[in-house]
Amino acid sequence: MAEEKQDENVVFVGGKPFMNYVTAVVMQFTKGASEVVVKARGKFISRAVDVAEVATKRFLNDQGVTVKDIKIDSEEFENKEGKKVNVSTIEITLGK
Amino acid sequence: MAEEKQDENVVFVGGKPFMNYVTAVVMQFTKGASEVVVKARGKFISRAVDVAEVATKRFLNDQGVTVKDIKIDSEEFENKEGKKVNVSTIEITLGK
Repeated sequence: MAEEKQDENVVFVGGKPFMNYVTAVVMQFTKGASEVVVKARGKFISRAVDVAEVATKRFLNDQGVTVKDIKIDSEEFENKEGKKVNVSTIEITLGK
Repeated sequence: MAEEKQDENVVFVGGKPFMNYVTAVVMQFTKGASEVVVKARGKFISRAVDVAEVATKRFLNDQGVTVKDIKIDSEEFENKEGKKVNVSTIEITLGK
Protein backbone atom coordinates (compact mmCIF):
# COMPACT_ATOMS: atom_id res chain seq x y z
CA MET A 1 0.00 0.00 0.00
CA ALA A 2 1.07 3.54 -0.72
CA GLU A 3 1.84 6.15 1.86
CA GLU A 4 -0.61 8.90 2.63
CA LYS A 5 -0.69 11.03 -0.47
CA GLN A 6 -0.48 14.79 -0.51
CA ASP A 7 -1.82 15.29 -4.03
CA GLU A 8 -2.90 18.60 -5.41
CA ASN A 9 -5.84 19.80 -3.38
CA VAL A 10 -6.19 16.56 -1.42
CA VAL A 11 -4.77 15.91 2.04
CA PHE A 12 -5.10 12.29 3.13
CA VAL A 13 -4.96 12.08 6.93
CA GLY A 14 -3.20 9.11 8.54
CA GLY A 15 -0.77 8.46 11.37
CA LYS A 16 1.85 11.16 10.82
CA PRO A 17 2.20 14.04 13.29
CA PHE A 18 -1.01 16.07 13.46
CA MET A 19 0.46 19.41 12.44
CA ASN A 20 1.87 17.90 9.21
CA TYR A 21 -1.68 17.68 7.91
CA VAL A 22 -2.74 21.11 9.13
CA THR A 23 0.34 22.62 7.50
CA ALA A 24 -0.36 20.75 4.27
CA VAL A 25 -3.90 22.17 4.15
CA VAL A 26 -2.76 25.72 4.95
CA MET A 27 0.02 25.53 2.35
CA GLN A 28 -2.37 24.51 -0.42
CA PHE A 29 -4.47 27.62 0.20
CA THR A 30 -1.35 29.79 0.47
CA LYS A 31 -0.26 28.44 -2.92
CA GLY A 32 -3.55 29.62 -4.40
CA ALA A 33 -5.92 26.64 -4.13
CA SER A 34 -9.57 27.65 -3.83
CA GLU A 35 -10.57 24.24 -2.45
CA VAL A 36 -8.81 21.53 -0.45
CA VAL A 37 -10.33 18.12 0.32
CA VAL A 38 -9.34 16.47 3.61
CA LYS A 39 -9.83 12.70 3.37
CA ALA A 40 -9.51 9.86 5.87
CA ARG A 41 -10.59 6.28 6.52
CA GLY A 42 -11.51 4.33 9.65
CA LYS A 43 -10.06 5.52 12.93
CA PHE A 44 -8.35 8.48 11.22
CA ILE A 45 -11.75 10.09 10.53
CA SER A 46 -11.71 11.82 13.95
CA ARG A 47 -8.28 13.22 13.13
CA ALA A 48 -9.45 14.49 9.75
CA VAL A 49 -12.20 16.46 11.52
CA ASP A 50 -9.60 17.87 13.94
CA VAL A 51 -7.36 18.85 11.00
CA ALA A 52 -10.26 20.60 9.23
CA GLU A 53 -11.31 22.42 12.40
CA VAL A 54 -7.83 23.59 13.38
CA ALA A 55 -6.91 24.59 9.80
CA THR A 56 -10.07 26.63 9.24
CA LYS A 57 -10.57 28.16 12.68
CA ARG A 58 -6.99 28.77 13.78
CA PHE A 59 -5.11 29.38 10.53
CA LEU A 60 -7.42 30.16 7.62
CA ASN A 61 -10.17 32.10 9.35
CA ASP A 62 -8.93 35.47 8.06
CA GLN A 63 -8.77 34.08 4.50
CA GLY A 64 -12.45 33.24 4.68
CA VAL A 65 -11.91 29.47 4.33
CA THR A 66 -14.76 27.40 5.73
CA VAL A 67 -16.16 23.87 5.53
CA LYS A 68 -18.10 23.69 2.25
CA ASP A 69 -19.17 20.07 2.16
CA ILE A 70 -18.79 16.81 4.08
CA LYS A 71 -19.39 13.36 2.61
CA ILE A 72 -19.23 10.01 4.36
CA ASP A 73 -19.18 6.61 2.69
CA SER A 74 -17.98 3.03 3.18
CA GLU A 75 -15.42 0.97 1.30
CA GLU A 76 -15.25 -2.80 1.29
CA PHE A 77 -11.89 -4.51 1.27
CA GLU A 78 -10.39 -7.89 2.08
CA ASN A 79 -8.32 -8.16 5.24
CA LYS A 80 -5.31 -10.46 5.69
CA GLU A 81 -7.56 -13.45 6.42
CA GLY A 82 -9.42 -12.89 3.14
CA LYS A 83 -12.52 -11.72 4.97
CA LYS A 84 -14.50 -8.82 3.55
CA VAL A 85 -14.66 -5.89 5.92
CA ASN A 86 -16.12 -2.42 5.59
CA VAL A 87 -14.33 0.75 6.48
CA SER A 88 -15.97 4.17 6.70
CA THR A 89 -14.52 7.14 4.84
CA ILE A 90 -14.90 10.91 5.06
CA GLU A 91 -14.22 13.75 2.63
CA ILE A 92 -14.28 17.26 4.04
CA THR A 93 -14.17 19.98 1.41
CA LEU A 94 -12.71 23.29 2.59
CA GLY A 95 -13.03 26.35 0.43
CA LYS A 96 -13.27 30.13 0.20
CA MET B 1 -20.62 13.93 33.66
CA ALA B 2 -23.79 12.29 32.45
CA GLU B 3 -23.90 9.07 30.50
CA GLU B 4 -24.36 9.11 26.78
CA LYS B 5 -27.91 10.25 26.25
CA GLN B 6 -30.39 8.58 23.99
CA ASP B 7 -32.85 11.48 23.75
CA GLU B 8 -35.67 11.63 21.28
CA ASN B 9 -34.13 11.72 17.84
CA VAL B 10 -30.56 12.07 19.10
CA VAL B 11 -28.07 9.24 19.51
CA PHE B 12 -24.89 10.31 21.27
CA VAL B 13 -22.07 7.89 20.39
CA GLY B 14 -19.52 6.98 23.09
CA GLY B 15 -17.75 3.92 24.40
CA LYS B 16 -20.60 1.43 24.70
CA PRO B 17 -20.78 -1.59 22.37
CA PHE B 18 -21.06 -0.52 18.77
CA MET B 19 -24.35 -2.23 17.98
CA ASN B 20 -26.07 -0.43 20.88
CA TYR B 21 -25.88 2.76 18.87
CA VAL B 22 -26.90 1.20 15.58
CA THR B 23 -29.91 -0.39 17.29
CA ALA B 24 -30.81 2.94 18.92
CA VAL B 25 -30.84 4.65 15.53
CA VAL B 26 -32.85 1.91 13.84
CA MET B 27 -35.37 1.86 16.72
CA GLN B 28 -36.02 5.59 16.45
CA PHE B 29 -36.99 5.21 12.80
CA THR B 30 -39.04 2.11 13.57
CA LYS B 31 -40.91 4.17 16.18
CA GLY B 32 -41.78 6.72 13.52
CA ALA B 33 -39.03 9.33 13.65
CA SER B 34 -38.42 11.05 10.32
CA GLU B 35 -34.97 12.27 11.37
CA VAL B 36 -32.32 11.02 13.77
CA VAL B 37 -29.15 12.95 14.63
CA VAL B 38 -26.01 10.93 15.43
CA LYS B 39 -23.63 13.02 17.55
CA ALA B 40 -20.12 12.44 18.87
CA ARG B 41 -17.06 14.24 20.18
CA GLY B 42 -13.31 13.69 19.87
CA LYS B 43 -12.15 10.15 19.18
CA PHE B 44 -15.73 8.89 18.99
CA ILE B 45 -16.31 10.81 15.76
CA SER B 46 -14.99 7.86 13.69
CA ARG B 47 -17.45 5.59 15.49
CA ALA B 48 -20.34 7.94 14.83
CA VAL B 49 -19.56 7.74 11.10
CA ASP B 50 -19.46 3.92 11.35
CA VAL B 51 -22.82 3.94 13.16
CA ALA B 52 -24.40 6.18 10.51
CA GLU B 53 -23.00 4.06 7.67
CA VAL B 54 -24.04 0.70 9.13
CA ALA B 55 -27.48 1.95 10.17
CA THR B 56 -28.32 3.47 6.80
CA LYS B 57 -26.68 0.95 4.46
CA ARG B 58 -27.29 -2.31 6.29
CA PHE B 59 -30.54 -1.72 8.19
CA LEU B 60 -32.47 1.29 6.90
CA ASN B 61 -31.71 1.13 3.20
CA ASP B 62 -35.15 -0.27 2.31
CA GLN B 63 -36.83 2.48 4.35
CA GLY B 64 -35.12 5.09 2.21
CA VAL B 65 -33.13 6.56 5.09
CA THR B 66 -29.97 8.40 3.99
CA VAL B 67 -27.47 10.92 5.29
CA LYS B 68 -29.14 14.34 4.98
CA ASP B 69 -26.59 16.64 6.55
CA ILE B 70 -23.24 16.56 8.34
CA LYS B 71 -21.90 19.34 10.53
CA ILE B 72 -18.55 19.56 12.27
CA ASP B 73 -17.58 22.04 14.95
CA SER B 74 -15.26 22.50 17.95
CA GLU B 75 -16.01 22.95 21.63
CA GLU B 76 -13.65 24.47 24.15
CA PHE B 77 -13.51 23.04 27.62
CA GLU B 78 -11.19 23.04 30.65
CA ASN B 79 -9.35 19.81 31.41
CA LYS B 80 -8.43 18.60 34.88
CA GLU B 81 -5.36 20.84 34.99
CA GLY B 82 -7.53 23.88 34.23
CA LYS B 83 -6.08 24.19 30.74
CA LYS B 84 -8.40 25.12 27.88
CA VAL B 85 -8.54 22.45 25.20
CA ASN B 86 -10.57 22.11 22.05
CA VAL B 87 -12.49 19.03 21.04
CA SER B 88 -14.06 18.47 17.63
CA THR B 89 -17.70 17.47 17.31
CA ILE B 90 -19.84 15.94 14.59
CA GLU B 91 -23.59 15.86 13.98
CA ILE B 92 -24.82 13.49 11.29
CA THR B 93 -28.49 13.94 10.39
CA LEU B 94 -30.17 10.83 8.98
CA GLY B 95 -33.60 11.11 7.41
CA LYS B 96 -36.10 9.78 4.92
